[in-house]
Amino acid sequence: MTAPGLPMRFPAPGLPARVTIHEVGPRDGLQNEKTTVPTPVKAEFVHRLAAAGLTTVEATSFVHPSWVPQLADAEELYPLLGDLPGVRLPVLVPNEKGLERAVELGVRSIAVFGSATETFARRNLNRTVDESLAMFEPVVSRAKADGIRVRGYLSMCFGDPWEGPVPLEQVVRVARRLRDLGCDELSLGDTIGTATPGHVRALLDRLGEEGVPDSVLAVHFHDTYGQALANTLAALEHGVTTVDASAGGLGGCPYARSATGNLATEDLVWMLHGLGIETGVDLGLLAATSLWMAEKLGRPSPSRTVRALSPKE
Amino acid sequence: MTAPGLPMRFPAPGLPARVTIHEVGPRDGLQNEKTTVPTPVKAEFVHRLAAAGLTTVEATSFVHPSWVPQLADAEELYPLLGDLPGVRLPVLVPNEKGLERAVELGVRSIAVFGSATETFARRNLNRTVDESLAMFEPVVSRAKADGIRVRGYLSMCFGDPWEGPVPLEQVVRVARRLRDLGCDELSLGDTIGTATPGHVRALLDRLGEEGVPDSVLAVHFHDTYGQALANTLAALEHGVTTVDASAGGLGGCPYARSATGNLATEDLVWMLHGLGIETGVDLGLLAATSLWMAEKLGRPSPSRTVRALSPKE
Repeated sequence: MTAPGLPMRFPAPGLPARVTIHEVGPRDGLQNEKTTVPTPVKAEFVHRLAAAGLTTVEATSFVHPSWVPQLADAEELYPLLGDLPGVRLPVLVPNEKGLERAVELGVRSIAVFGSATETFARRNLNRTVDESLAMFEPVVSRAKADGIRVRGYLSMCFGDPWEGPVPLEQVVRVARRLRDLGCDELSLGDTIGTATPGHVRALLDRLGEEGVPDSVLAVHFHDTYGQALANTLAALEHGVTTVDASAGGLGGCPYARSATGNLATEDLVWMLHGLGIETGVDLGLLAATSLWMAEKLGRPSPSRTVRALSPKE
Repeated sequence: MTAPGLPMRFPAPGLPARVTIHEVGPRDGLQNEKTTVPTPVKAEFVHRLAAAGLTTVEATSFVHPSWVPQLADAEELYPLLGDLPGVRLPVLVPNEKGLERAVELGVRSIAVFGSATETFARRNLNRTVDESLAMFEPVVSRAKADGIRVRGYLSMCFGDPWEGPVPLEQVVRVARRLRDLGCDELSLGDTIGTATPGHVRALLDRLGEEGVPDSVLAVHFHDTYGQALANTLAALEHGVTTVDASAGGLGGCPYARSATGNLATEDLVWMLHGLGIETGVDLGLLAATSLWMAEKLGRPSPSRTVRALSPKE
């Protein structure tokens, strides 16, 4: 590892002392990779991420296997993860059937996947936004009755590839509905990566005014236009303390002409540690894990920090 | 081009209304590319950048041809650029000999290239920091007497690959000296890309306290650890209004394990326009120029925005 003593720590005023990283690599990352990873390798990946200090690792998805073949082994994988003290292992569930499968395996934290736009709801869930909320209602209700923590993903919060700019009020409406259903946390997704820092602030302002404060929010930025980390800084300055990221930038291909990948966890950790913000993460262990996974996938990591920290050829 | 109507414009408080982009692609970018570009292509590149609305385009370098073979054609290139109304075409000059060659060709804007650290001064200039300042003194003095605008680059302002973290006071000392020599503008370089936003603020604070205000500063961030745009946001919030960037991220290889490239101009423009900050740049024309240059170089652009805006295969 290069650059000893770096990044230098320079706390900046108005930022949180600690940030929770919601690691999405094993689920959102691997789901979007072409290579299907063997189940024991996935289990080792989750274990290594936990050993690197990540306290929330989204492990897999209990959707129908034909929808997401890369995660078709959810029922084999989850029992391999075992009990990791102090680590949450949420799983994505699309409906009551998925929740039942997850509950039987002892899952204590789930996520549902909603959309702020009609076109994406139709294309991703084959439902209107209201129909998808109706589908989530019994899932969230039963999960909450069982004491299970529920995260609600809200995709297309800024731009939509079919609808263009997404009005703030449209996002606020769906966010309010997901909170009313009982979601403990909402993750605001910039699914096509078009957001800029002022847009992030404007949305967080409106959500706060409508009773959805930063304390129940997470941000989920994509680096399609290189904006993810600048947007994260704006969200932290606003008061958000939970940030989604994907180890090694998993899910975005470094060679694609349109790289739609998640923010890389290592790039995020570099900034947070530079700002003196605690994450509990050991950056060296994390980058080593991402290098190991990049080898399994047979291609370099899209994370700039992972590439910079990797042993030179 | 995709994403019509995007980015949405959301001005944020405390940011400048207008930012000057100091485009370094033809000099700093091409200097670090493996492929040597024919002189007429370089001239067309500069013309296309100016047509895209960039008002400062660093054109080439009058160093000894054996030092930087990619820019050995400076004397052939400069006359081909002609007079571009409203566009500054600074060139790098290392010493009095370089200045003489530039002045003979009618250059009206130059840059000298200094270092904040002894190790880099020694390796890059084969001099101590003080010896390099002594070398610049007659260059700046003669240029100023001729009414030529002078920019001073200050590299390794945050981290140094040999020395590690660079103390703020060391940067302040060299910056003060360059200002005292008569440099109109100083460009603070994060040459190895390790800076984070709090570090940027701390350095700008110290410089301001020592009589080097934001109004005479530019920032020059590298994206080695993915921090360039977040650092730029911090600098803009502080009051800096000149930002260095390289069209298409030129100078950084998207395939390198350690991508040491400049901030891509397109990624910068996307953020600035999203923030409602004027740049005068037409993003579509700029991205088309970078795609054209990427074809000349025979490899994809490292700019995420260029890739996202490029026609899909």
